[in-house]
Amino acid sequence: MTIVYIAIACGILAVLYGLVTSQQVLRAPAGDQKMQDIAAAIQEGAKAYLGRQYTTIAIVGAVVAIVMFLTLGTLSTVAFLLGAVLSGVAGFVGMHISVRANVRTAEAARTSLQGGLTLAFRSGAITGMLVAGLGLLSISLIFWYLTGPGGQEPNGEKIIHALTALAFGASLISIFARLGGGIFTKAADVGADLVGKVEAGIPEDDPRNPAVIADNVGDNVGDCAGMAADLFETYVVTIGLTMVSIALLVSGTTEQLMGLMALPLLVGGVCIITSIIGTYMVRLGKGQSIMGALYKGFWTTVILSIPAIYFATQYVLGDLNAVIGGPADATNVDVAASVAAQAVGDGFTGMDLFWCMMIGLGVTGLLVWITEYYTGTNYRPVRSIAKASETGHGTNVIQGLAISLESTAMPTIVIVVAVIASYQLAGIIGVAFAATSLLALAGMVVALDAYGPVTDNAGGIAEMAGLPDDVRTRTDALDAVGNTTKAVTKGYAIGSAALAALVLFGAYTEDLKRYFGDVTVDFSLSNPFVIVGLLLGALLPYLFGAFGMTAVGRAAGHVVEDVRAQFRDNPGIMAGTSRPNYGRTVDIVTRAAIKEMIIPSLLPVLSPIVLYFVILTVDSQANAFASVGAMLLGVIVSGLFVAISMTSGGGAWDNAKKYIEDGNHGGKGSEAHKAAVTGDTVGDPYKDTAGPAVNPMIKITNIVALLLLAALAGGGG
Amino acid sequence: MTIVYIAIACGILAVLYGLVTSQQVLRAPAGDQKMQDIAAAIQEGAKAYLGRQYTTIAIVGAVVAIVMFLTLGTLSTVAFLLGAVLSGVAGFVGMHISVRANVRTAEAARTSLQGGLTLAFRSGAITGMLVAGLGLLSISLIFWYLTGPGGQEPNGEKIIHALTALAFGASLISIFARLGGGIFTKAADVGADLVGKVEAGIPEDDPRNPAVIADNVGDNVGDCAGMAADLFETYVVTIGLTMVSIALLVSGTTEQLMGLMALPLLVGGVCIITSIIGTYMVRLGKGQSIMGALYKGFWTTVILSIPAIYFATQYVLGDLNAVIGGPADATNVDVAASVAAQAVGDGFTGMDLFWCMMIGLGVTGLLVWITEYYTGTNYRPVRSIAKASETGHGTNVIQGLAISLESTAMPTIVIVVAVIASYQLAGIIGVAFAATSLLALAGMVVALDAYGPVTDNAGGIAEMAGLPDDVRTRTDALDAVGNTTKAVTKGYAIGSAALAALVLFGAYTEDLKRYFGDVTVDFSLSNPFVIVGLLLGALLPYLFGAFGMTAVGRAAGHVVEDVRAQFRDNPGIMAGTSRPNYGRTVDIVTRAAIKEMIIPSLLPVLSPIVLYFVILTVDSQANAFASVGAMLLGVIVSGLFVAISMTSGGGAWDNAKKYIEDGNHGGKGSEAHKAAVTGDTVGDPYKDTAGPAVNPMIKITNIVALLLLAALAGGGG
Repeated sequence: MTIVYIAIACGILAVLYGLVTSQQVLRAPAGDQKMQDIAAAIQEGAKAYLGRQYTTIAIVGAVVAIVMFLTLGTLSTVAFLLGAVLSGVAGFVGMHISVRANVRTAEAARTSLQGGLTLAFRSGAITGMLVAGLGLLSISLIFWYLTGPGGQEPNGEKIIHALTALAFGASLISIFARLGGGIFTKAADVGADLVGKVEAGIPEDDPRNPAVIADNVGDNVGDCAGMAADLFETYVVTIGLTMVSIALLVSGTTEQLMGLMALPLLVGGVCIITSIIGTYMVRLGKGQSIMGALYKGFWTTVILSIPAIYFATQYVLGDLNAVIGGPADATNVDVAASVAAQAVGDGFTGMDLFWCMMIGLGVTGLLVWITEYYTGTNYRPVRSIAKASETGHGTNVIQGLAISLESTAMPTIVIVVAVIASYQLAGIIGVAFAATSLLALAGMVVALDAYGPVTDNAGGIAEMAGLPDDVRTRTDALDAVGNTTKAVTKGYAIGSAALAALVLFGAYTEDLKRYFGDVTVDFSLSNPFVIVGLLLGALLPYLFGAFGMTAVGRAAGHVVEDVRAQFRDNPGIMAGTSRPNYGRTVDIVTRAAIKEMIIPSLLPVLSPIVLYFVILTVDSQANAFASVGAMLLGVIVSGLFVAISMTSGGGAWDNAKKYIEDGNHGGKGSEAHKAAVTGDTVGDPYKDTAGPAVNPMIKITNIVALLLLAALAGGGG
Repeated sequence: MTIVYIAIACGILAVLYGLVTSQQVLRAPAGDQKMQDIAAAIQEGAKAYLGRQYTTIAIVGAVVAIVMFLTLGTLSTVAFLLGAVLSGVAGFVGMHISVRANVRTAEAARTSLQGGLTLAFRSGAITGMLVAGLGLLSISLIFWYLTGPGGQEPNGEKIIHALTALAFGASLISIFARLGGGIFTKAADVGADLVGKVEAGIPEDDPRNPAVIADNVGDNVGDCAGMAADLFETYVVTIGLTMVSIALLVSGTTEQLMGLMALPLLVGGVCIITSIIGTYMVRLGKGQSIMGALYKGFWTTVILSIPAIYFATQYVLGDLNAVIGGPADATNVDVAASVAAQAVGDGFTGMDLFWCMMIGLGVTGLLVWITEYYTGTNYRPVRSIAKASETGHGTNVIQGLAISLESTAMPTIVIVVAVIASYQLAGIIGVAFAATSLLALAGMVVALDAYGPVTDNAGGIAEMAGLPDDVRTRTDALDAVGNTTKAVTKGYAIGSAALAALVLFGAYTEDLKRYFGDVTVDFSLSNPFVIVGLLLGALLPYLFGAFGMTAVGRAAGHVVEDVRAQFRDNPGIMAGTSRPNYGRTVDIVTRAAIKEMIIPSLLPVLSPIVLYFVILTVDSQANAFASVGAMLLGVIVSGLFVAISMTSGGGAWDNAKKYIEDGNHGGKGSEAHKAAVTGDTVGDPYKDTAGPAVNPMIKITNIVALLLLAALAGGGG
C-alpha cells in the first residue's frame, strides 16, 4: 500500500506544481490596456465556448451515467463521473491559464526571447502536470479505496469495472473536447483566413477582422483544452488498462499482485518528478535555439526517467531476476489458460519489465524524432513540399499528400518492433508496461504541446496591439516551433494507442472468457465475421475523418457569412474607426462547433453496440463477439495510418509555408507562397480536427466494447 | 469435360468478336492528313512506350521465371509465363486498336454523336472482350490440359499450382503495367498542364505544347493498356482462385468436383455472350444521353446474365436443390477439418450458389451506382466540391478530401453485407462464387472503361487538327462521361479484390495445412504476430501510394524542364511556325515512368517474403506464417479504403471542374474554376496512378504468399 501512497503523493505534487507555477505566471506583468482588452476578449470567448461545450457534454454524460447506473451499478457510474469530471478540470484549468499566459508572454517578449519562452513553457507545463497529476490521482485513489477501505482483492471484479468506467468517462469527454475544440479552432482559422486574407486582403491577426478573436480562442479550446482532455484520457486508459491486464492475466498472491498492479502507478509517479525537473531545464543556449531549449527539457526527463524507473521497479519487486507471474491464476485456468499462457509465457522477471519500459521510452524518443523529421523545416519532407509549391497549388497538395502517406511508415515500423520486442520479454503484460512508460512522460509531452497555443496567441496579441516589430519577431520565433511540438504530441498519442490496442484487445478477450466462458468465440482471420469486423472497424476513422473535415468546412462557411455581413453593415470596421463585434463571431463558431461535434462523436460509441446486435440477429452470439472484437482491431489498424498521415502531413504543410516565408523559393507574396498557403489551409483540418480526434475515437470504441460485455453479463459493480 | 469445351468456345468467341470488330473499326475513315499525322505520332509514342515497358517487365519476368523454375518446377513456370504473356497481349492489342480508333472517332464525330459513340465504344469493347476472352481461355486450357491429357484429378496439386502460377504471371504484369502506365499518363498530363496552361498560357491540347502528344499517349498506355492488364489479372485471379478453393475445400467424387470446378468457367463463358449482346445495345435514346446509352448496354448484360447464370448452374449441377459438397474431402479431413467445415458448413445446394452469384451481380450494380453518385455531376458530392471552389483552392481540396474519405462507406457496407449473405448461403465457396459472377461481367465493364481514352484522344485530335467547334463539342460530350466510367471500373476492381481477399486467405490457410500440417498456426487476433502482420500489411498501400504520388511529381518535373527547354531553344514553336519535338518529350516520360515503376512494384512482391524470414528469425515458423497471413488481410483492410477514397475522390474532383466549366459557380476562367483546376490536378495521380495500382498490389501480395508456401514446401509442380 505504501507504493500507492507514494503515487498519490506524486499526483498531489504535480497538482501543487500547477498551483505554484500558475501563481508565478499570473504574477507576471500583463501588458498595457490595449493588450489586456484583447486578452480579455479571448478569455471571455474561451470561457463562453468551454462553458457551452461542457454543458452539452454534461447532458450526454448524464444520459450515459443513467444508462450505466441501470446496467452496471453505482461503482462504475461514480468512476465514470470521476473520469469525466477530472478530464474536464484538466482541460478547463489548462485553458484558464493559457488565455492569461498569452498576453503575459507577449509582454515578456518585449524584453527578451528567454522571458517569453519561460512564460509560455511554464504555462504549458501547468497543463501538462495537471494532466499527468490528475490522471495518476484518479487511478491511484480508486485503487487505494477499493483495495483498502473497500476490502477488495487487487484483481477483483470491482476494480476491473471501476478502472474501465474511469477510462470511459475520460474518453467520452475527450472525444467531444477534441472534436468540438478541433472544429472550433479550424472553422475560425479557415473562416478568418478566407474572408480576411483572401477577400478583404488584410493580414493575419488584423484587429479589423471580426473573426480574429475567434481564431485566438480556437487555439486555446482546441490545442490546449481539447488536447489536455485527449492526453488525460490516453494516460488513464493506458495505465488503468495495464493494471486491469495484470489483474486478468497474472497469477500470484494478493501481495504480489498488489505490488505488480501498483508498479504502473509508481512509474507514473516518479516520471512526474523527472518531468518537473525537466521543465526547469528549458533554457536557451548560446545558439538561441528554441527547439533546442525545449529538447533540453524533454531529454533531461527521458534520461532521468531511466534510473527512476529502474529503482521504482526494484523497490516494488525486490529481486529483479526472480520470476514473477506464471501463466493464469487459479480462477482463470479453466477459461483462459491458452490466452493467459500466451500473454505471459512462462512468467517474467522484474528485469524483463524494466526493459519493456525502456522500450517504451525508446519509442517515445523515436516518435519525437520521426515527427520532427517529417514536420521540421530542416529536412527533406517539408522542403520537398516547399519546392513543389513553385509549380503551383496542385503540386504543393500532391507532394503534401505523398508526404502524409509516407510519414506513416517509420512510426509503424517502430511500433511493430516495440510490440515484438516487449512481447518477447513479457507477453502482453510487457506490451502494457511499454505503453505505460511511454505515457508516463505525458506531463512533459503535454507541456511541449500546450506551449503552442500560448505563443500563437502571444503573436496575435502583439500584432493586434501594435507592439514593435522586434517583439513580433520574437513571438513568431516562439510560435514556429509550436507546429512541430504540436505534431509531436499527436504522433505520441496515436502511437500509444497502437501499443494500447493489443492490451485493450487482450482485456476484451479475457472479459469475454470471464463472462461468457461457455461461448466459443473464433477470432481467427478465417472467420468471415472477423473480416467483417475488421472492415467496418477500418471504416470508422475514414467516416469520422469525413465528418470532421466537412464540419470544419460548414462551420467556416458560417464564419465567412458573418464576417461579410459585419463588413457590409459597418463600413467603419475596415476603415479602422469602429470595433468589429468579435463576440458575435465567437458565438457563431461556438454554436456551429457544438452542433457539429455530436454526430461524429457518437459514431464510435454506437458502432460496436449496433454491430453486436446486427450480427447477433443474422448469425450467432459467438460471431457477434468475434465481429466486435475484430472491429476494435480494425479501427486501430486503419486509425493509426489515418491519424499519423493527417497530423504529420498537416504539420509538414504548415511548416512548408513557414519555410517559404523565411525567404526560400521566392518568399512571402510569391506564387510559391500562395500555393503553400493553400497547402496550409488543407492541412489545418487534417492536423487539428480530424487527425487528432482519431486517437480518442479508437479508445472509446474499445472501451464501449468492454462495457458492452459487462452490461450483457448483467453488470457487476 | 463438355462444360470446359463450352467455356473454351466462349473464350474463342470473345477473341473472334475482337477480331471482327477491329476490322469494323479499322475500316472506318481515318480523317484528313493532319489528323492522321497526329494519330501517327500518338501511335508511335504508345508503341515505343509499351515496347520499352514490356522489355523491362520481360527482364523482371525472366528473373522471376528462373526463380520459379528452380523452386516450383516446370509446370508452374509455364503457367506463369502464359499468364504474363496473355496479360501483355490483352493490353497491347487493346492499346493498338485504341490509338487507331481515336482519330476515327474524331472523324465520325464530324457527322453525328451516335457515330462517334459507336466507334469509341466498339473500340473499348474489343479490349473488354479480349480481357475476358483471353482470361477465360487461359484458365480453361490449363484446366482442360491437366485434367484431360495430363490425367490429373481436378483437385490435384498440379492444378492448384498451375492456376496459382497463372494468376501470379497476370498479377506481375498487371502491377507494372498499372503503375508504369499510371505514372506515364499523369506525369505527361500534369507536366503538360503546368507548363502549358499555367506558364505559357496556352489551352489544353494545343499543338504548340511539346507534351501534348505524350499526354495523349498517356491516356492509352494508362487507361487502356494498364487497365486491361489489371482487369485481366483480376479476372484470372478471381475465377482461378474460386476453382482452387473448390479443389481445396469441397468433398465429392471426381465427376462432381469436375463439374463444380468447371462451373465458374461456364459462368464466365455465358457472361461473355451476354456482354457481347450488351455491346450492341449501346445506342443513344431520344434524350441523347451518352451515359444512358452506355447504361443500356450495361444493364442489358446484367439482366440477361441472371437467366444465363441460372441455366448454366442447372446445366452443370442438375438438381439445384440437391446438397452438394459436404465438409472436407477424405484427403483433407485430417488436416483441414475445422476450416473446411467452416468454409462450406453442412454443404450447399445449386440454388445456394445461384443466389451467391446473384449477390455478385447485385454488388456490381450497387458499386456502379455508388460510384456514379460520388463522381457524377448530378449529385451532392461533386456539387459540394464545386461549391467549395468558390472560396478558393484550399476549401476545394478540403471538401474533395472529405468526399474521398466519405466515399469509402457505402462500398464497404455493400461488400460486408455481400460477404455475410454469401457466406451464410454456402460458406467461403459462396463468397468465391459471388466474386466470380462479379468478375464475369468484366468484358462489359472494361468496354465502358476503355471507351474513355479513345474519346479523350478524339477530343485532343479534334483540337489539334483544328476541326470545327461542333465536332469538338461532340467529342467533349463523349469524353465527359469517361470520368465516371473510369471511376466505375476502378471501384469494381477493388470491390472484387475485397471479396477475393477472403477466398485468397482461405487458400493460404488451406495450403498451410496441406504443406505444413504439423505446424500449428495461430491466426487469432490475440496473437501479437497477427497484429504485427495486420499493421505492416496496412502500411503497404500507404507506402505504395506515397511512392506513386512522388513518382508522378518527379516525372512531371522532367516534362516541365523539357518543355521549357524546347520553348527556349526554338521560339518558332510558340509562334506556331515550327513543330515541337513531340518524340523527345514522349521519350523522357517513357524513361521516367519505367524507372519509377520498379521499386514500388517490388514492394508487394518482397514484403511477404521479408516478413516471413524476419519473424522466422526472431520467433518461430508458426508465427512467421501467422504474420504473413495477417499481412494479406492487413493489405486489403487498408488497401480497400485507400483505393476507393483515391479513385472516387479523384473522379469527383475532375467532374467538379467539369461541372464548373458547364457554367456553374462562375464557369470557365472564374476564381472557382481555378480552384477546381487545382483539385483536378491533385485528383489526377490519386485516381489514375496510386489508387488503381492498389488493386493488383493487394493481389500480388496474396499470391506471392501462396507461392512462398509452395516454394518452402519444396515445390510441387
